[in-house]
Amino acid sequence: MGFAGVFTQNAARAACVEWSQSLVGLPVRALIANSGNANACTGKGGVEAVEETAAAAARQIGCHPEEVVVASTGPIGVPLPVDKIVAALPTAMEALEGDAESFARSLMTTDTFPKWSSVSYPHVAGVAKGAAMVAPNMATMLAFLVTDVPLGMAELQDVLAAAVDRTFNRISIDACESTNDSVMLLSTGLGELPEPGAFANAVEQVCGELARQIVLDAEGATKFVRIAVSGAPNEAYATGIGRAIAASDLWRAALHGADPNWGRVLAAAGGFDRMLDLSRIEIALGDVTVFGGGEPQRGANDAAASVLREDELTVHVSLGAGAATAEILTADLSPEYVKLNAFGTT
Amino acid sequence: MGFAGVFTQNAARAACVEWSQSLVGLPVRALIANSGNANACTGKGGVEAVEETAAAAARQIGCHPEEVVVASTGPIGVPLPVDKIVAALPTAMEALEGDAESFARSLMTTDTFPKWSSVSYPHVAGVAKGAAMVAPNMATMLAFLVTDVPLGMAELQDVLAAAVDRTFNRISIDACESTNDSVMLLSTGLGELPEPGAFANAVEQVCGELARQIVLDAEGATKFVRIAVSGAPNEAYATGIGRAIAASDLWRAALHGADPNWGRVLAAAGGFDRMLDLSRIEIALGDVTVFGGGEPQRGANDAAASVLREDELTVHVSLGAGAATAEILTADLSPEYVKLNAFGTT
Repeated sequence: MGFAGVFTQNAARAACVEWSQSLVGLPVRALIANSGNANACTGKGGVEAVEETAAAAARQIGCHPEEVVVASTGPIGVPLPVDKIVAALPTAMEALEGDAESFARSLMTTDTFPKWSSVSYPHVAGVAKGAAMVAPNMATMLAFLVTDVPLGMAELQDVLAAAVDRTFNRISIDACESTNDSVMLLSTGLGELPEPGAFANAVEQVCGELARQIVLDAEGATKFVRIAVSGAPNEAYATGIGRAIAASDLWRAALHGADPNWGRVLAAAGGFDRMLDLSRIEIALGDVTVFGGGEPQRGANDAAASVLREDELTVHVSLGAGAATAEILTADLSPEYVKLNAFGTT
Repeated sequence: MGFAGVFTQNAARAACVEWSQSLVGLPVRALIANSGNANACTGKGGVEAVEETAAAAARQIGCHPEEVVVASTGPIGVPLPVDKIVAALPTAMEALEGDAESFARSLMTTDTFPKWSSVSYPHVAGVAKGAAMVAPNMATMLAFLVTDVPLGMAELQDVLAAAVDRTFNRISIDACESTNDSVMLLSTGLGELPEPGAFANAVEQVCGELARQIVLDAEGATKFVRIAVSGAPNEAYATGIGRAIAASDLWRAALHGADPNWGRVLAAAGGFDRMLDLSRIEIALGDVTVFGGGEPQRGANDAAASVLREDELTVHVSLGAGAATAEILTADLSPEYVKLNAFGTT
C-alpha cells in the first residue's frame, strides 16, 4: 500500500513516530496502533519496543517489519509493555473487522464517542483518536485514513500534507503540542483515478470532519467555538491570529462563563502582532458586533452574552487588512479540564 | 523627577500606556494610578480620559499635564469613568502618605496582600499591583519604583530595562500578555551617587522581590514554582525553554495535582526547540532526577510526587549544551483559576 504521513515535529516525539516517519513513501502492509502508552521519552527501550512490535506484526502477516507502521498514544515516559502487545496480536488479528467505526471504537480510551468519517467518491475513509488533550494525560491525536485511489507516493503525501495544514493544524484545545500526533494515509491503489481535485477534496473533507469531532469531544469542554478570522493580508497571518486567540486561557475561561470579555480577544491578537491596527478591526460574537472602528460598541454586552451561552458559536475577527481568511476550532477552558489533567500518571 | 518606564508591547495597549510611554526621559512631577478599569481598547474616549486625568492632577499640584504619568488596571474595553477620578483627586491628595505599604495597599483589588519592597543603600523602594492575572479580570501588572539616586534619564532607563528583563519578564502565570503592564521608576535625584553597580543591583533586587510576590499571589494558585534552566547555549535560549515550560497548561495542571508527569516538561521543551537533544537533558523535580541520559529514571515517581506536594518547589532542567542559565517563576493551574476568570465583566 502507498503510505503518506504527517507527524508531530516535537523534539520529544515518540519512538513510534520516528519509526513510522522513516517509512513515508515506502510501500507498507500493515498498521498497528495502541492506546494507553505513548512510548515517548522512553529511551533505547522505547526504540526496541517499536522494533519488536513491528517484527511481531510482520511475522503474523508474513511481511518485513519495515512494512509495518506503528502508532501509540498515552502517558509519556512510561516503558511500553511490548510483551502484552505481542501476546495479544493473534487475537487482535482474528477480531479485525472491516469497518471504520469498530476501528475507531478500538482506539477509544476516555473519548466519549468513536470518531470516523468517509467520502464515497473517491473512496476515502478515516478514523481518529482523542485530541490534542481530549483524554486525560493522552498528549496525542492519532488519525488514520485509507483509500483505494491509485496515486504515486509523492502525490499522496502532498494531498495529505495540504489537508492536514487546513484541518488538524487548525484545531487547538490547550495549545500543548504532542509527542505522538500522527496522521497517516494508506492507499491500496486498487481503485480508479478520479477527476482532478476530487481526491484532495475528499481527503480534506474527511480530515476536516475528524478534526471537528476531536474538538467536539475536547476534554472538559462545554462549547464548540469557531475563531473566524477574515480581512488578513495572507492565510498564514490569519491562521496565526486565530491560533493566538484560541491559545488564550483567559478568553477560553471567559467563553466557559459566557462572559463577553472581548478585550481578551484583542489582547491575544495584539500580542501576536504588536503593530496591529485596532482602528480597522471588527470583533463580533455570533452576529453581535462588540468592537469596531477603534471603539467598543456600547450596549452590546447582553446580546453578546446570549451568544456565548450557546453550545456552539463563532467569534468573528475582521482585520480590514486584506482578503485572506482562516478558521480555527477550539473549545472553552473549564475547571473540569484542569481537574482531569491534574491527576494522571500516579 | 527623572522618569524611566518599561511597558507592554501589546498592540491593544491602553491609552494610559501610550501616554506614559511618551513621557519616558522627560521630567515628571506626579504619578496617578487607578485600579478597576484598564482604559484599554476604549477608543478616542479613552485617550481623552487620560488627558483629563493628567490635566486634573496637574491643576491640583500646579504643573503641566505632561508632567503627570498615568497608569490603569482593570477590565478591558469599559469606558473609564473619568469624572469619578477627577472628583476624588483632592481627597486622594490629602490622604497621601509617604510609605510604600499604604501606596501598595491603595492599589489592591483582589490581591491578598500588599506588594512592596525596598533597599536602603542606595535608596530604592517599589510597590506592585496584582500580576499578569492575579486578580479576576485584571489583565494587568503595575509596578512603581522610586529612588533619590541622581542619574541621567538614559542611565535610569537602561538600569530599569535590564532589571525588568531579568525579573518581571521571567514570571509567567498564564502566558497571557497584558494591555496595561507598566513598570515605572521615578527619581528625585536628590540623593548621592552610590558606587558603580550598586544602583543597578538595588533596582534588580526590588524588581525581583516584587515579581516574586506577584507569583506568590497568583490567581487560584497553591504552589510557587521555579523553573531553573541550566546548561543552555545562551541566556535567551534558557529563558525561552523556561517560558515554554511555564506556559504549558498541562504541566501546570500536573503541578496542581502533584502528579510527576515530567513528560509534559519534555514535550514543552521539545516544542520550543524541535532539534533539542534529549540524550543530554536531565530533569529533576526538587532533588529527584526523573529523566537523564535519554532514559526515564525508574522508581523515581513516589519521591518526585512528594516534592510536588510541597508549597514551593523547583523544576530543574539541565540541557547539557552550554553554561547559560535562567530561572522562570510560575504557579500551578487550578480549577479555581478557571472559575475566577470565567466570570468578570458581566
